[in-house]
Amino acid sequence: MAVDTMKAVRFHGRNDLRFEHIPEPTCGKDQIKVSKEANLHEYLGGPGICPTTPHPITKETIPLTFGHEFSGTIEEIGSDIKGDFKVGDRVAVQPIIYDGTCGACKEGLPNCCYNNGFVGLSGWGGGLSEHLVVPEYCVIKIPDNVSLEIAALVEPLSVGWHAVKISPFKPNDYVLILGGGPIGLSVIQALRARGSNCTIIVSEVSAKRKDYAKQFGADHVLDPTVDDVVARCREIADGVGVHEVFDCAGVQAGLDAAIHAVRARGTVVNIAVWEKACSIHPNDVMFKERKYLGVATYVLGDFKEVIDAISEGRMKPEAMITKRIELEEVVEEGFKALVKDKDNQVKILVKAWGGN
Amino acid sequence: MAVDTMKAVRFHGRNDLRFEHIPEPTCGKDQIKVSKEANLHEYLGGPGICPTTPHPITKETIPLTFGHEFSGTIEEIGSDIKGDFKVGDRVAVQPIIYDGTCGACKEGLPNCCYNNGFVGLSGWGGGLSEHLVVPEYCVIKIPDNVSLEIAALVEPLSVGWHAVKISPFKPNDYVLILGGGPIGLSVIQALRARGSNCTIIVSEVSAKRKDYAKQFGADHVLDPTVDDVVARCREIADGVGVHEVFDCAGVQAGLDAAIHAVRARGTVVNIAVWEKACSIHPNDVMFKERKYLGVATYVLGDFKEVIDAISEGRMKPEAMITKRIELEEVVEEGFKALVKDKDNQVKILVKAWGGN
Ligand SMILES: [Zn+2]
Ligand SMILES: [Zn+2]
Repeated sequence: MAVDTMKAVRFHGRNDLRFEHIPEPTCGKDQIKVSKEANLHEYLGGPGICPTTPHPITKETIPLTFGHEFSGTIEEIGSDIKGDFKVGDRVAVQPIIYDGTCGACKEGLPNCCYNNGFVGLSGWGGGLSEHLVVPEYCVIKIPDNVSLEIAALVEPLSVGWHAVKISPFKPNDYVLILGGGPIGLSVIQALRARGSNCTIIVSEVSAKRKDYAKQFGADHVLDPTVDDVVARCREIADGVGVHEVFDCAGVQAGLDAAIHAVRARGTVVNIAVWEKACSIHPNDVMFKERKYLGVATYVLGDFKEVIDAISEGRMKPEAMITKRIELEEVVEEGFKALVKDKDNQVKILVKAWGGN
Repeated sequence: MAVDTMKAVRFHGRNDLRFEHIPEPTCGKDQIKVSKEANLHEYLGGPGICPTTPHPITKETIPLTFGHEFSGTIEEIGSDIKGDFKVGDRVAVQPIIYDGTCGACKEGLPNCCYNNGFVGLSGWGGGLSEHLVVPEYCVIKIPDNVSLEIAALVEPLSVGWHAVKISPFKPNDYVLILGGGPIGLSVIQALRARGSNCTIIVSEVSAKRKDYAKQFGADHVLDPTVDDVVARCREIADGVGVHEVFDCAGVQAGLDAAIHAVRARGTVVNIAVWEKACSIHPNDVMFKERKYLGVATYVLGDFKEVIDAISEGRMKPEAMITKRIELEEVVEEGFKALVKDKDNQVKILVKAWGGN
């Protein structure tokens, strides 16, 4: 029997994304096959963590199909699937890969799995292809009033949602967000969906991103190249500083400001992936009993909560999609070319494309 | 009227401690005068924070009477004192100085006061004198079955007590303590007084301090110059690492181990005063959702809890006093000379001395 092929964009190595035809995956008994719909295009990051030696769980290495923020419809259901799924169901795909056996997994923290990975980065296919098969837990149904395009936003929104959820945030807090990119905007939306009276301060350089921050609900937008962020935060927040900082930028100057902008017993929440180690003076943390808290992606359950928040109108993330492109453009322009326009974009949607 | 004088050891500047006769303080209407009894001798630290410009609360500058870990008996009571105190009461002195008006104080965190100070470091006299007068809140009565010598240990014990109390410690946790000095030992005792089933691992180089750590209740004592602390902690603690680390050492290599020795969602608690900034890779904190938490001294109430724990036999700190010296020896040997014997001592008690 001839193997069916499908279109896919695969990552072969640094600066080497290729548009290819690859074998269409078949659905195993404990898997669900998804026909891919909307996909968000990620500029940066990702490739660095694609495995060059076999991933401990997927056993795959590059080339790997790319894309971990996407939605689709169910095409086929394996024989051992327990949940209430049927062909044609519209779904968001939660791209967590975890072993279920390590210390973190045993404590219910698959996001901290010692062998973790991501669909679209570590194997099991990805959003930039026509079909993929994943385990049941990856597939989250979306209600009729949530479009498949919006469903592709659930992944980045879940990152902000999770961070706010495990932070000590209370509804009347003063909050500083470092960076007005996709994750910063997802934090704003998570805060607004959970606590309408909090005061949100965003620190961001790009004019376009400052506008987005205001649009999504920031009360104050500071420019760290012009404003004294620490002094302004103290001024705005009772004269003593904010309760929480969400660091979505991952740069030293931002962290320095964060630690001094937060009040006694306040928390700096790190969501950013850093390129190198940072410098912290422990005495600055200690004498004010501050906390530095790391948060990683999301846990099982966060996707559903974000989908509910969108469906119930508590989150309106549409405006995060700032551009729509064809799959071919991803490959032609390449990831590097798109970086140039980074400051003006939040999320670029790669349109669904027809069958082979 | 001639002013009465008293003996005192005052700090005049780096390496300049002098045994002097200074005016005896008089008791104001909202103050309590204490006749000093046992005092613990501090080797290091202190002098660096003695004010060279007027302290915002005490308005004093060096020379200042030294000593912030001590006990005594009440000599005189001001007219406006509200509490149940009488002349002759035996007391521990809680040396916190705070303004009561800053953001931290308003939130009940005098230990994080933006203008904070310490009796014996920032003014209001100190333990190395015959008499001192302090506000009512500084004076905590001790029961008959707690000696004045032991009462001088309440200050360092409160540091460990407070750190354990505000950490997420649970009774069956695995805990790593970096450093087996006075604060490390006070953490061990606080853990044992609060949770008898926890497993305590101490990392310490000095042979004598290793012995003290075992004596006070450590289950495992590791030597970071010989043992792989991270690997051993994982081995001992379910294969995944400890729940909390208490850093009482304040050195980079210890912190590096701490971050990797702690499990997913575990907490590194910093108690140490650091001499310089440290380096942390935020990704190491983030991918395992770890926490870095600063704790500073103690809050009002901690002294009383420690005194109760001693009185009820839940803490038996006697063995922390490893040597007794005369006041004259403090001055003669000087702080620097005593540093040489640091690894063999925990706390050196400066004996009470007779009236002038
Ligand atoms: Zn795992
Ligand atoms: Zn204060």
